[in-house]
Amino acid sequence: MASTVQPSLSDIQAAARRIAGIAHRTPIVTCATLDRLAGRRLFFKCEQWQKVGAFKFRGACNAVNKLDERDARKGVVTHSSGNHAQALALAAKLRGISAHIVMPSNATPVKRRAVEGYGAIVVECEPTLIARETTVAEVQKKTGAVLIPPYNHPDVIAGQGTTALEMLEERPDLDAIVAPIGGGGLMAGVSIAAKAIKPSIRLFAAEPLGADDAARSKAKGELILQTRPHTIADGLLTSLGDLTWPVVRDLVEAVVTVTEDEIVQAMRLTWERAKLLIEPSSAVAVAAVLTPRFHDLAGMKNVGIVLSGGNVNLDKLPW
Amino acid sequence: MASTVQPSLSDIQAAARRIAGIAHRTPIVTCATLDRLAGRRLFFKCEQWQKVGAFKFRGACNAVNKLDERDARKGVVTHSSGNHAQALALAAKLRGISAHIVMPSNATPVKRRAVEGYGAIVVECEPTLIARETTVAEVQKKTGAVLIPPYNHPDVIAGQGTTALEMLEERPDLDAIVAPIGGGGLMAGVSIAAKAIKPSIRLFAAEPLGADDAARSKAKGELILQTRPHTIADGLLTSLGDLTWPVVRDLVEAVVTVTEDEIVQAMRLTWERAKLLIEPSSAVAVAAVLTPRFHDLAGMKNVGIVLSGGNVNLDKLPW
Repeated sequence: MASTVQPSLSDIQAAARRIAGIAHRTPIVTCATLDRLAGRRLFFKCEQWQKVGAFKFRGACNAVNKLDERDARKGVVTHSSGNHAQALALAAKLRGISAHIVMPSNATPVKRRAVEGYGAIVVECEPTLIARETTVAEVQKKTGAVLIPPYNHPDVIAGQGTTALEMLEERPDLDAIVAPIGGGGLMAGVSIAAKAIKPSIRLFAAEPLGADDAARSKAKGELILQTRPHTIADGLLTSLGDLTWPVVRDLVEAVVTVTEDEIVQAMRLTWERAKLLIEPSSAVAVAAVLTPRFHDLAGMKNVGIVLSGGNVNLDKLPW
Repeated sequence: MASTVQPSLSDIQAAARRIAGIAHRTPIVTCATLDRLAGRRLFFKCEQWQKVGAFKFRGACNAVNKLDERDARKGVVTHSSGNHAQALALAAKLRGISAHIVMPSNATPVKRRAVEGYGAIVVECEPTLIARETTVAEVQKKTGAVLIPPYNHPDVIAGQGTTALEMLEERPDLDAIVAPIGGGGLMAGVSIAAKAIKPSIRLFAAEPLGADDAARSKAKGELILQTRPHTIADGLLTSLGDLTWPVVRDLVEAVVTVTEDEIVQAMRLTWERAKLLIEPSSAVAVAAVLTPRFHDLAGMKNVGIVLSGGNVNLDKLPW
């Protein structure tokens, strides 16, 4: 089955062609102050300016537009209350097909409205994993909609990987790329693409200490699921999947964990000095390159950082 | 005397050559949501990413680097507690000369530290206009430092005008430019440059209703000074000067005033939807293009907006 196979570089290149003109090619920006603090040159890939304000649109857009006409007509479905929900809703709208978003009943009204604003059908369920999966299954049974999960899917991973294609096209001199890791869709796509294009590149995942399943998996050499995550980086609460974990195991040099304080400080620093409005999950990657541990790694002059998104609640800032 | 003459296009072009490689050439970005709300295409010139986080660096940098060696050795002086203070401090530092910044004793410690961080000498004075001017005169007498005022100076105006050169180079199809107006240095420089390059371009100043000296001057046809300004847009509190007023009178089509509510809403919208971290003074220009009055103006498809800066106190956001 196609859905159990990791995408290759050519799948990611095909994804890039597929989403061209639909997803934004986001700019890379720099900040002298952050360079100084990190002790090296940082290149920020600004996915907060991607459609829906997060890299998630790349994966959703690729998955939706890869569907053949017959499947597409039945629509798509997912369960998410985060950026993937909005990404899938918009990708479906732009293709002119329906999207069903299964959301827990405790999702904030603003998130629900955002998804509905993109024309998707919100299906409420109890806030448990089992209720979510049952509800998705019900939607699929009734409509025939195709499930597009948030990360553990080759087409989603391939879409996220287009981020690295653009980074290395613009800055072929990158010595390393750092990206935040939650379910691992971004990290896996970026790693597959970057290593295939530039085998010498070094890859680092940035993870909150309060949701450190990737770090623990990496340390143990086997997939450990996330239990009871607790972090402000609400895009990084999920476990790695069986498609994303092997990539992290084989291609990622290290998982750099950061504390909640480090995340908030990095977020504020990025707002104040770089004037870049990023969400806490993005700040995890900034925090990682500012840690003494990363600072002391030798041999990396130019480091690319994926700023994964910019969807924050301006009424509840963490400082 | 040179200081009483408005700069010409060639002065502004000379300024552009002078500051090239020192000041940033900032990008222009767009936002589909704001386009929809404004009813036209908006092109945001992002001076929040300029050095010191505001367009002010252009003018200070031009003025400092235009000094001949003999004058430069004596240093520069100004009175400001805002972005111009930081801009002059950094411009002087980069040229390797001293800067004296006269600041009122009630300036916030963070502003003082920012200026000192750029290596400038802060000279405190009572928070009155007369004390400021006396203190500047004392510094000049003692050191021979050259006064670089924040806006009413041809070299400063020429430097700010480079903003429009870059905008029209990148987007020659702009039908109009909107910029916030305080002392008028930015508006004057932008107007002189833009009209000389593209005589058909329309120019609009955006001003808080709570500091509407430009609107009142324009209505009466003579310079009216600002008294008791009251607005969150703390970069726009000052009166027009005798160099900037004639440009506003002759080249600016209209001054669009906006309420405090409109400023805060526009700022929040720009943060939330465009993910651009701008200060209230910048939001005044965004608010202006969202007013019904501006919306109803015919014949402008592509409107450039100068986002003048991004220096905000993240502990005191206005919502």
